[in-house]
Amino acid sequence: MSYEHILVAVDLTEECDPVIKKAMALALAGHSKLSLVHIVEPMAMAFGGDVPMDLSQLQQQQFDQAKEKLEALKRKYPDVKTGDSHLTYGQPRQEIHNLAKEHHVDLIVVGSHGRHGLSLLLGSTANDVLHGAPCDVLAVRLIKRPEK
Amino acid sequence: MSYEHILVAVDLTEECDPVIKKAMALALAGHSKLSLVHIVEPMAMAFGGDVPMDLSQLQQQQFDQAKEKLEALKRKYPDVKTGDSHLTYGQPRQEIHNLAKEHHVDLIVVGSHGRHGLSLLLGSTANDVLHGAPCDVLAVRLIKRPEK
Repeated sequence: MSYEHILVAVDLTEECDPVIKKAMALALAGHSKLSLVHIVEPMAMAFGGDVPMDLSQLQQQQFDQAKEKLEALKRKYPDVKTGDSHLTYGQPRQEIHNLAKEHHVDLIVVGSHGRHGLSLLLGSTANDVLHGAPCDVLAVRLIKRPEK
Repeated sequence: MSYEHILVAVDLTEECDPVIKKAMALALAGHSKLSLVHIVEPMAMAFGGDVPMDLSQLQQQQFDQAKEKLEALKRKYPDVKTGDSHLTYGQPRQEIHNLAKEHHVDLIVVGSHGRHGLSLLLGSTANDVLHGAPCDVLAVRLIKRPEK
């Protein structure tokens, strides 16, 4: 009944640490393969899809930075080596669902701020990923801790 | 890193079987306490909250039937005896979140049809439970299997 392949969606900020830790604990308990994914959302899309300026250089920088951070994350969590890490462009829900289908993922783990109200309309990644997901989804609650 | 108290929200149909099985597997792997909850949505609310007829008798029948089914479910899964089972009236999200807070639940497990489109607007229990949840939420994907 345990999961065979767990895919963790990371936002590459410090917030993703508890998400990876939870996913790792599940993977260790169930001897599951563990993979990482980070999605870079295309800037043109973020600005509304009709921006006259050339964003390709900025996008490349964004992609390179994400790649470096993802490599750093893999070094920080060497146990993730059993799986793959993916870095793709696109709309998070679609890319995560596609990867899950391609790689026979049976659990997607994603961080959730547990926000409601306005974000219910705007959508959050956790909520978005849940809809139409090809497999189970674990939303790990992220809690803002008071600064030390 | 494993969960201490897992709360499974069940709809008391046959569909909830895979949800309970997944939750049980997690509970066994992590030596977690496992509790069940079923929420009976008040009829007056379902009809719009302003129904002139007396629904108290019908509601009592609905509640009694749910109680019987929940007892049958507990007999079917004797391993759930480690935790409690809860049967309450109300709005599922609110009741599940309240129970989770009261009983120090760190994982809510709920079934998800993975529907999108219209149900994104109408809300589904899994999506609804995710918003504002005080802890992690595992949405177990329910797949309609072809009839044998």
